[in-house]
Amino acid sequence: MAINSTHSVQIIRINAAESAAATDTLAIEEPLEIRLEHGPEGQRQVQNISVTMRTPGHDTELAAGFLFTEGIIKNPEDIASAQHCLIACSENKENVVQVSLNPDIIPHLQNAERNFYTTSSCGVCGKGSINAIRTVSDFTERADDQDKIQADILYQLPIILRRHQRVFDDTGGLHASALFTATGELLLLREDVGRHNALDKLIGAALNYNWLPLHQTVLLLSGRASFELVQKAAMAGINIITAVGAPSSLAVQLAEEFNITLIGFLRDERFNIYTAAHRVISTSYEPAVSNH
Amino acid sequence: MAINSTHSVQIIRINAAESAAATDTLAIEEPLEIRLEHGPEGQRQVQNISVTMRTPGHDTELAAGFLFTEGIIKNPEDIASAQHCLIACSENKENVVQVSLNPDIIPHLQNAERNFYTTSSCGVCGKGSINAIRTVSDFTERADDQDKIQADILYQLPIILRRHQRVFDDTGGLHASALFTATGELLLLREDVGRHNALDKLIGAALNYNWLPLHQTVLLLSGRASFELVQKAAMAGINIITAVGAPSSLAVQLAEEFNITLIGFLRDERFNIYTAAHRVISTSYEPAVSNH
Repeated sequence: MAINSTHSVQIIRINAAESAAATDTLAIEEPLEIRLEHGPEGQRQVQNISVTMRTPGHDTELAAGFLFTEGIIKNPEDIASAQHCLIACSENKENVVQVSLNPDIIPHLQNAERNFYTTSSCGVCGKGSINAIRTVSDFTERADDQDKIQADILYQLPIILRRHQRVFDDTGGLHASALFTATGELLLLREDVGRHNALDKLIGAALNYNWLPLHQTVLLLSGRASFELVQKAAMAGINIITAVGAPSSLAVQLAEEFNITLIGFLRDERFNIYTAAHRVISTSYEPAVSNH
Repeated sequence: MAINSTHSVQIIRINAAESAAATDTLAIEEPLEIRLEHGPEGQRQVQNISVTMRTPGHDTELAAGFLFTEGIIKNPEDIASAQHCLIACSENKENVVQVSLNPDIIPHLQNAERNFYTTSSCGVCGKGSINAIRTVSDFTERADDQDKIQADILYQLPIILRRHQRVFDDTGGLHASALFTATGELLLLREDVGRHNALDKLIGAALNYNWLPLHQTVLLLSGRASFELVQKAAMAGINIITAVGAPSSLAVQLAEEFNITLIGFLRDERFNIYTAAHRVISTSYEPAVSNH
């Protein structure tokens, strides 16, 4: 099945001087239903877990990543298969992915979606949302990791991202998540109309490669760093999160709580460090550095 | 209760030349639980409808707007009251809003969330998502409206938005939705870490003012135009949607289906018209216009 991520339409371009008919390329947005098959042999059941608006491509990674970052499954080995719906889907098979768990795996469905933020003693609050993540993640208690990143390498990451962001170039309309080594080598890049989907695709791919926990990597987000994105990265064991845009208050609190290095406004050879600055190496840290 | 939308933190700013301790202002992100009280006298029940990560402020508008744009309620008169939880919330009252419906109103809870996109004959597809909206909105069948907007006024909208976007200026991290008259007068502006929340707050405010359907207004979105945002605008009867960023394929399909004018990349005195171009008036439409 050929996967299209973009679609061409006829538009009118207008500016003060002129108007012209033109062809424009759009990022495709279509619903994806994630179904989960689980249960012991002879008692298998299929549940609809989520419908998300996504850009087609890497759908099985998206499904696996979603199940993992929402705490519904714990290990890549929990998954027996993940594929587009082959039977019992008469139409639009490409918009349904079914993940089948091994018979002995019980999915943690109580962790899904809205319950995630409220399973806490405080009622409804950011602190409770952070604590809820602690209970479902295996990788949030960071040992004395040795992850470090140099400022000079950080400056390069958004440049490398843009060079590789194919669909964004065509459409101007996609979010991206990218994973780098500490030396600035691009490991993975995923794009989507939904920024949570871009990160779920990336983490789902890493899960398939058996790379988790993602210590010794650096995550770059093409936009802002929200709580949800830092949450997903924390679930995957990422220690260094960088964003081209601004972080939110709760994203910073979550990063601080889990000793994650959170960097924002990474562009034009500058950035802000919000938490865990000890992982960043910069010559400009040292006062009175000589230039010769 | 004083509402804070921003929060200050200590950071380290780094560029090639220097690093410096600094204070940075973050957009606050906290969960909001929306509860719905409904049912006849003597049989009232309270349900948790949604938890969304939002920036505090205009919470009751957000709740009312969400219930309306998701098709759960149809009219502002359905709502008896909407307020932060006063009883039965021992902690974090500011993060819970309870909307109480009049006793004779039955909420359309089957319209909520994931069901919204799948109540169709096609299985799961964009076309089905569009059709689902048609069944739950009163304002999607547009009569022969007279809405028009001049290109010269469109150019001004992002400039007016930025001038009024207080929290964005402080944090660099908020989405905005703004409502204008066809002459470029700003009617309403709402900001949030979540772009769907910014639009729900705006539509909730318009609902409270009894302004719906929002014919003869122009909506401006500070970022991209996704399906979800065009859906919410369509529910409120908005005929002209403009976005600073790119639209998605499904956003364009939805706008086309409902005869909504959708404009993207509105910045630097230029824009693209994706659908229903007849509402845009521009001198540059006419070839060979004389300048004297």
